Amino acid sequence: MKINQFAYVPTDHHTIVKELADVHFLTAQTKKMADPVMLYRQFLLKFFIEKQSLATRIQKVANLMATPTLNAYEFTTTQAAVSKLAFYNVGLQLLGFEVGLDFELNDPFSAMKKYRLPMAVVDDTLDRNQVIDAWYKLLNTRTKFGQTLIDYLAGQGYYHQFFGTDELKQPLIFNGKSQAVFDTTKLIRDVVYVEAPLDNDHDGKRDLLKTEIIRPGETENGLKVPVIFTASPYDQGTNDHQADQMTHDVNQEKLTRKQPNHLSYEDVKFDYDNHDLPEPRTIKDTNKVAEESFVKTWTYSLNDYFLARGFAVVYSSGVGTKDSDGVRTTGTPDETISATSVIEWLHGDRTAFTNRSDQIAIPAWWSNGNVGMTGRSYLGTLSTAAAMTGVDGLKTAVVEAGISNYYDYYRENGLVVAPGGFQGEDTDVLGELTFSREQSAADYLKIKDTWLAQLKKLTAGQDRVTGSYNSFWDNRNLLKNVNIKADMLLVHGLNDWNVKLSHVYNLRKTLKNEKITQKLVLHQGQHEYLNNFRSVDFTDIVNLWLTNKLLAVDNQANQIVPDVLVQDNAEPETWNTYKDWGGNVKEIPLDDKRWTDLNENHSFSDQLPDDLFKDYIENTKKWQKALFTKNHSKLDKHSIKLVSEPLDQDITVDGRATITLRAASSADLGLLSAALVDYGIEKRLTAVPQILSAQQIITGYQWRKDDLKEFLPEKKASAYKKFTDAHMNMQNRTNNYQSDDLKPGQYYNFTMAFQPTFWRLLKGHQLGLIIYATDMDYTIRSNQDISYTVDLSASKIELPLLTADDNQG
Amino acid sequence: MKINQFAYVPTDHHTIVKELADVHFLTAQTKKMADPVMLYRQFLLKFFIEKQSLATRIQKVANLMATPTLNAYEFTTTQAAVSKLAFYNVGLQLLGFEVGLDFELNDPFSAMKKYRLPMAVVDDTLDRNQVIDAWYKLLNTRTKFGQTLIDYLAGQGYYHQFFGTDELKQPLIFNGKSQAVFDTTKLIRDVVYVEAPLDNDHDGKRDLLKTEIIRPGETENGLKVPVIFTASPYDQGTNDHQADQMTHDVNQEKLTRKQPNHLSYEDVKFDYDNHDLPEPRTIKDTNKVAEESFVKTWTYSLNDYFLARGFAVVYSSGVGTKDSDGVRTTGTPDETISATSVIEWLHGDRTAFTNRSDQIAIPAWWSNGNVGMTGRSYLGTLSTAAAMTGVDGLKTAVVEAGISNYYDYYRENGLVVAPGGFQGEDTDVLGELTFSREQSAADYLKIKDTWLAQLKKLTAGQDRVTGSYNSFWDNRNLLKNVNIKADMLLVHGLNDWNVKLSHVYNLRKTLKNEKITQKLVLHQGQHEYLNNFRSVDFTDIVNLWLTNKLLAVDNQANQIVPDVLVQDNAEPETWNTYKDWGGNVKEIPLDDKRWTDLNENHSFSDQLPDDLFKDYIENTKKWQKALFTKNHSKLDKHSIKLVSEPLDQDITVDGRATITLRAASSADLGLLSAALVDYGIEKRLTAVPQILSAQQIITGYQWRKDDLKEFLPEKKASAYKKFTDAHMNMQNRTNNYQSDDLKPGQYYNFTMAFQPTFWRLLKGHQLGLIIYATDMDYTIRSNQDISYTVDLSASKIELPLLTADDNQG
Repeated sequence: MKINQFAYVPTDHHTIVKELADVHFLTAQTKKMADPVMLYRQFLLKFFIEKQSLATRIQKVANLMATPTLNAYEFTTTQAAVSKLAFYNVGLQLLGFEVGLDFELNDPFSAMKKYRLPMAVVDDTLDRNQVIDAWYKLLNTRTKFGQTLIDYLAGQGYYHQFFGTDELKQPLIFNGKSQAVFDTTKLIRDVVYVEAPLDNDHDGKRDLLKTEIIRPGETENGLKVPVIFTASPYDQGTNDHQADQMTHDVNQEKLTRKQPNHLSYEDVKFDYDNHDLPEPRTIKDTNKVAEESFVKTWTYSLNDYFLARGFAVVYSSGVGTKDSDGVRTTGTPDETISATSVIEWLHGDRTAFTNRSDQIAIPAWWSNGNVGMTGRSYLGTLSTAAAMTGVDGLKTAVVEAGISNYYDYYRENGLVVAPGGFQGEDTDVLGELTFSREQSAADYLKIKDTWLAQLKKLTAGQDRVTGSYNSFWDNRNLLKNVNIKADMLLVHGLNDWNVKLSHVYNLRKTLKNEKITQKLVLHQGQHEYLNNFRSVDFTDIVNLWLTNKLLAVDNQANQIVPDVLVQDNAEPETWNTYKDWGGNVKEIPLDDKRWTDLNENHSFSDQLPDDLFKDYIENTKKWQKALFTKNHSKLDKHSIKLVSEPLDQDITVDGRATITLRAASSADLGLLSAALVDYGIEKRLTAVPQILSAQQIITGYQWRKDDLKEFLPEKKASAYKKFTDAHMNMQNRTNNYQSDDLKPGQYYNFTMAFQPTFWRLLKGHQLGLIIYATDMDYTIRSNQDISYTVDLSASKIELPLLTADDNQG
Repeated sequence: MKINQFAYVPTDHHTIVKELADVHFLTAQTKKMADPVMLYRQFLLKFFIEKQSLATRIQKVANLMATPTLNAYEFTTTQAAVSKLAFYNVGLQLLGFEVGLDFELNDPFSAMKKYRLPMAVVDDTLDRNQVIDAWYKLLNTRTKFGQTLIDYLAGQGYYHQFFGTDELKQPLIFNGKSQAVFDTTKLIRDVVYVEAPLDNDHDGKRDLLKTEIIRPGETENGLKVPVIFTASPYDQGTNDHQADQMTHDVNQEKLTRKQPNHLSYEDVKFDYDNHDLPEPRTIKDTNKVAEESFVKTWTYSLNDYFLARGFAVVYSSGVGTKDSDGVRTTGTPDETISATSVIEWLHGDRTAFTNRSDQIAIPAWWSNGNVGMTGRSYLGTLSTAAAMTGVDGLKTAVVEAGISNYYDYYRENGLVVAPGGFQGEDTDVLGELTFSREQSAADYLKIKDTWLAQLKKLTAGQDRVTGSYNSFWDNRNLLKNVNIKADMLLVHGLNDWNVKLSHVYNLRKTLKNEKITQKLVLHQGQHEYLNNFRSVDFTDIVNLWLTNKLLAVDNQANQIVPDVLVQDNAEPETWNTYKDWGGNVKEIPLDDKRWTDLNENHSFSDQLPDDLFKDYIENTKKWQKALFTKNHSKLDKHSIKLVSEPLDQDITVDGRATITLRAASSADLGLLSAALVDYGIEKRLTAVPQILSAQQIITGYQWRKDDLKEFLPEKKASAYKKFTDAHMNMQNRTNNYQSDDLKPGQYYNFTMAFQPTFWRLLKGHQLGLIIYATDMDYTIRSNQDISYTVDLSASKIELPLLTADDNQG
């Protein structure tokens, strides 16, 4: 167990006193106490919430041990000084650590060191001010169960005892972070219909977009609040069955020769044109009160956490979703405008109506105009897309696992390459999945023909036959037009094979040229949220960040949040900070003597025996095992396998590696794949988080609970781990839109960029390079009779390696 | 998808009119409407909640299709009559079914038949009264997402619009079930300390037991409410790590010869004696207001459901748990008394205090005195134990997977046999697991020595060496002293290998002699709760049951709830009702010609080669596969395998089968195991429920959500399924306490009862009987050099088979 905190704001004693008064630990009475022991006792008694009786609270304090022989109440009634030992013995128990199990009363300090818990005290005895400072730091320390102690206390009703009195600031900032001081039983849920500057179903009327608002009841008394906006196309329902039916059969598809051409980017460039826009509806009246409310079955725990902290949360699903107009477009500016329209309304720059028919406008009068976006995957993608427009009001986006270029999501170097786990998915399938207007029978009847025509356009435009970049994809490239004002907090899993690492890498690279602050968090998950982990205070980081960006609190968020925060792959629960992502490139020829050539054949057939091929289709894990196992496997004759000597020290591949292969195909078409593999028997971290403790995180008093999670080591050691890969259509060696000629048997150079990574290979491990063709998990599976030959003497990889000076400390 | 409902109360038109008025669908205005179409339109508009604007509600009605061409609003404004077609087209949409996906607008009826949805209407056109009756039935029909439509509506805020007005009855009964008409934001959470007539830690003071209460805020205005009480020893925390450490190593333990004896039951009988009880504490004062409150991280969704319906929910963990006195005893009457003391307090017959020190009594003044218990496993066990005492106030218990005799949980026929999945667990391990006083450091310091001594007593008393029934176990047999007044709803999984089927079977058998009403539900799960499934309205059944037992509403619960409700194993989502559990016994000799003897060796060694033994320890699934696979396997020489001819019709093993083996051991000790196996390649139901739709069940307005679950068929077909087994120490052929002599090589008769079951073997399948010795999953694993010989010609099984007249219809 390791508790890593990055969102603690170093605070001076003067400010501490002020802030402890704000949260009522220092009161008119306790401020006067000169005796540190008496003050400490009062802090402990207040911890157990003063609406409970004194007898109850004394009992609870007396349940804690301060020394190996004295309980905390005895200690504070018999001792003359507050010892560091007693303070942290009690502190650890308040943080949820168990005596005997997690630490021993004669030495709390070694446990604190092991768990990486901060200590505010140097001296063996605490004077009055040190008690105050140490108590403040303790309240801002994370418990065993994934929250700061003050957040735990809020969940126990600490702030609730002041609800409805004048004694509570709203919002209340403590150590730079917004506190759970809002009454979630009073939340107000409104529905409005934002009129977007779009008519993407061409019905002659601007598209109305259903928008759901949850705001603090306190806004009814004039409080203006910041807004967290999540644009989720999934939120109004998904057509799972219909999308499944539409999924492309990658076993039927063939790799096809492309007619060579000399297309330039200008030939495939798409200029989005939103012309012929109908006029806005006439506003017949204005009302401050919404007419419609809603109940959600879907929740997002990070947003819920902020609802207790005085942020409004807004959901809108965009064109083509249930109760909205328009059709899905899978990633075009129509969907971006769906999101920015909502932001414009929240900022006072666009109209929303109370219902779909009466043209009664309703302003976002309760909004302070500052919007931050959140969400993962498609949701994060829309956050990025909105941020790139520079829309007024959008101050920041927390982008978890977002797409930055749809081509890179469904294609790679001129090849159809699926998102991991979604073989056969494409823009049409995702469009059908999210077109939730289909679930509203009467509405669907009206739009059905338009939708079926739109689906055909998606299927045609995405062009699974060539896999090339074209104007369809250019219209779905979010990195093309950059006009950004929002600060960006980017979050991505280093094992995310769904939205792969190139998305966040390329986005970050693009943003480096912009005048904004960007931060990066890379974790060991696949496609996961990060807000309920024990080993990292991600929620606190986001709180610090949004409190800074949306409430304009000067809490040093830009300085305190690490520029690059990376979870280590080799050591559980370990997070390190870096200045940048991307190491010094080292070139390694493939005929280097330090490689062992396992198969010793540089010419391999991609075609498998029919029954083996079918077996692998049924179970691609078997295929992976055969491909990546070093010793003799059924794929030895179908791949080239190189492994390095055992490493004499740890190395970290940091950034985007590339490979250049001098290779030939036996046909006039072909594909190449390459993977870098970490060989070494280890219990590696699992990329899917596991529940440490169900419903343990309480995000507010009698409010939502969340499971505490962590990426845990595998139960059984594994021999290898693929940590990055690359794929290319050999007719796209120049770029992803030009089709090159390919002559059978002729050698060409193919340079492919691997997925960016941050991967530490331990001393004694071996680096493996596997060169193959069809990737059962990602490419179409044609089992065509093609052989590939690689000239290793003219091939190389370029590895970016972490250097010591990248460490941020 | 099949929606099976058992809790619908047939209701006459007169009562329907009254009840629809109670829920405000029939109002002064709508009652007057003679026109069925106009009335129907009003019902639809009211469905979308009148606090929303009319324009919003019209829009929502207009989103529903009534006929293939008319939406529901158009229909009700243009048509002269309400057609059956339109009513159920709209009805299906209200129930969450999708046009095109789940049904077609030209024929809703075939879908309704397929999904087993009830239809109230015979005629093609509905008159006014038929609209009323059909609307009532629709409101009481289950949606696609596992709730009745009226419960779904409550979750959408239907009742909430009347909160705080006089227009809402509290409680409100609709179709015999309590409605979600209570304001869960007003729930009050109290802690009291019940003084139990116990001093099991021998500190000279009666044990105080922490008891947590959640009650409707409406009780503050004088409302008396019924109580659902869950006695959960896990609720205050568990010592997982310490218990793991204490788990017995079944690989180290040996089967030991027992000295033959002639013990009678009187020799092992235990008379519980609760003498030397200290006097109750003096009551110094009485208060109606609690001093302490609480916040739970653990929740139980069935209880939460009832919190919205005006029931109080009480949790208490009993002796030896955190903040209570005493030590854990794993199943003795001390734990039963812990539970009954709380019931006595709720019924006004026992004292509770506001805190542990001041002796201020607090009565349960808000309780109506009627208590029902709920909970699974240990929790259900305590419900059974409490019910068996006949304690006043306890009207019923809903027992899910409860233990009825601890001996049967940890032992079988003189043999150490583990609960499935918990090899090496025993009463000491479970005691340590639940002794949560250990988590309170100062409290633990006081009790540590007492506890360690108690643990030693548990280890000694449970006697893993002989495995025999003794006075220790007799003290933990809940079926011994029966004095029951509570009606019992028993629920058990037919695949529960943790708390096995003998528990519910024996309990039910015992209860047959008592003057109470008992009901039984057998599902296809392992150790699972059943309150969030799509295919069965278990929650509604419990609601009907508790409304009857605790609110004394005459809703015919005893007649309507089936006596025996069984989920079929061969057909998904299929539930049948029966009069009883237990078929007609058919005797089948083991040398019957219809058996195929697969191994043709009737003498087998139990000892495995060392590496194979170790391999099976690591992965008992491999062992299972070898044991149950019909064709040649590594266990052929270590077992006898008989399979029947393919069945020429379905048969259902209904109840408790037995086997009589004439067998000999090569040693003076030995064990026998037998299993009945269903052979046939099928996609069988998985015994762990899978989530169909996360957070889809809303148990009240802005209240808890629950995942919708179901037991789904396996993705890949399996060749066999063990459906029952039996184990015996050969020195216990007489009974489980007398040690018989066993001479090497000598034949004896061994009669073992299988775990009771209800298992349908399909036509074409084969019944298998596997005879073996060491069971890697359940018995100690000694790998001793012993051979067993069975004389099949003198052996037989007796199978209880379902007959057609058992069907309740």
